[in-house]
Amino acid sequence: MISARTKLFAVIGDPIAHSLSPVMQNRFISQFGLDAVYTAFHVKNSDLRACVDGMRAMGIRGLNVTVPHKEAVLPFVDQASEEVQLLGAANTLKNDDGRIIAFVTDPYGFEQSLAEKSRFKDAGVLLFGAGGAAKSVAFALARLGVKKLIIHDLVDEKTRELVALCRDGFGLADVSALADLSADLNEVIAETPILINATAVGMHPLHEKSVIEDLAPVSKKHFCFDLVYNPGKTKFLRLAEKTGAAVQNGLDMLIFQGLKSLRIWTDEELELTPDQLGQVRRIMKEQLGIDE
Amino acid sequence: MISARTKLFAVIGDPIAHSLSPVMQNRFISQFGLDAVYTAFHVKNSDLRACVDGMRAMGIRGLNVTVPHKEAVLPFVDQASEEVQLLGAANTLKNDDGRIIAFVTDPYGFEQSLAEKSRFKDAGVLLFGAGGAAKSVAFALARLGVKKLIIHDLVDEKTRELVALCRDGFGLADVSALADLSADLNEVIAETPILINATAVGMHPLHEKSVIEDLAPVSKKHFCFDLVYNPGKTKFLRLAEKTGAAVQNGLDMLIFQGLKSLRIWTDEELELTPDQLGQVRRIMKEQLGIDE
Repeated sequence: MISARTKLFAVIGDPIAHSLSPVMQNRFISQFGLDAVYTAFHVKNSDLRACVDGMRAMGIRGLNVTVPHKEAVLPFVDQASEEVQLLGAANTLKNDDGRIIAFVTDPYGFEQSLAEKSRFKDAGVLLFGAGGAAKSVAFALARLGVKKLIIHDLVDEKTRELVALCRDGFGLADVSALADLSADLNEVIAETPILINATAVGMHPLHEKSVIEDLAPVSKKHFCFDLVYNPGKTKFLRLAEKTGAAVQNGLDMLIFQGLKSLRIWTDEELELTPDQLGQVRRIMKEQLGIDE
Repeated sequence: MISARTKLFAVIGDPIAHSLSPVMQNRFISQFGLDAVYTAFHVKNSDLRACVDGMRAMGIRGLNVTVPHKEAVLPFVDQASEEVQLLGAANTLKNDDGRIIAFVTDPYGFEQSLAEKSRFKDAGVLLFGAGGAAKSVAFALARLGVKKLIIHDLVDEKTRELVALCRDGFGLADVSALADLSADLNEVIAETPILINATAVGMHPLHEKSVIEDLAPVSKKHFCFDLVYNPGKTKFLRLAEKTGAAVQNGLDMLIFQGLKSLRIWTDEELELTPDQLGQVRRIMKEQLGIDE
């Protein structure tokens, strides 16, 4: 039962009405028996300072930060984790007795969602996208020990920036941009065992599109990861699955980045049992209207 | 289930950890099937501005304001109801699309808690206390049409101020201060059919005290109201009951002022059935550890 001692967590974003975080986090809260509740706030860019100051004034224990505020919120916090400083973005604010500290849990979420992390050690990865999500994935890839990273984004400048960050910030030696997809793409795909989509291609309204339309060079030796989780299987993953490749969507990444936020706020070692993880997946698929 | 569309309400105060408002309001919310949740924030005086600005920034729909912020919050709101302007205090802030409006629901709560309002019409009332609670009660008494109001408080200056407010602000013609309780108190009590305690006497740590220690002049013609609800029956009410007087504590006042806040925030005509009111009383007595 909610009482005057119940802690409040919330997600801020613009828009926010479709966020799944409240459903997911309140499920965690009930699974772990925490005395807390998680809601959502629609916050405009011009209100970010008042929002963070209000968090401090009201003793709101934790906020998740989502699009489009992950970078814009940083000037208003008191401290930022090393990862946040490196990535220039945060998705988690912790109220540490009036001191607001920014964290980013997306790289952890990606890493934790992988069943076989060893697959990444010394491997080559082709990463589609150079935005915020791709940046978090690239950071995780560096930590996972990938050997070669090739990045493609429609905006060349963003690609160049992420390549530079991967080299200078994340310490990846062999990182390059794949500027022109049409050229030797098939060859690159054939030689690169891990393909990751960190763009919005495959998600509504681009649900009839795939980052790779010609899956001929993909084989059962490939691992194809799509950060999109709605639809549960994008066209990219459906096509990849037909080639015998291993596939995975971004639902578990979403779950594990959220769980990590809750750990940061509570300072508790919260671990989901396989059953609990299954429950959370189920409830989120229900919310998304995903059947499979 | 809480989602990104669930509205947030909360109570602010200092201290706040023992507030019953979250338990009461969440029970209302569930009884009326509202998509909302109610928590509590510990807000210090120096953080009131940031709190109200944060309420605006985060789109928090409603706040209750309790001790010691009922007056101090007023400089930071955008608008105040007529009652708030008259009483100089608010217990309810409504976020009307970014515009924060202050209301006070305590007078309504007092009025609504009375089974027999007609008892007050043209009656005489002896009111103990001249603080914020007494002010709200006096305002309600004026609206109920009392003929004669006598006010006593240990601090003479507060009494004088409230007497002046009752005359000049509330339009009560016959209002006076009972400065010295020892003198003709018994006579006044015998002649005044309604006795109201709006002080902290009778509440812990003053639970062994009564605003009137000599109940000889009280009879079954009297109505004795104690704003204190914990203990459920103060010494004043226990002694009064023995004389055959009708007695009532402040629990229903608390319930109805809270219900009124919820109505203001939701713009809905929320009415408790007798069963629902009984449920709320029961759950609050449980929380308070009151048996009777």
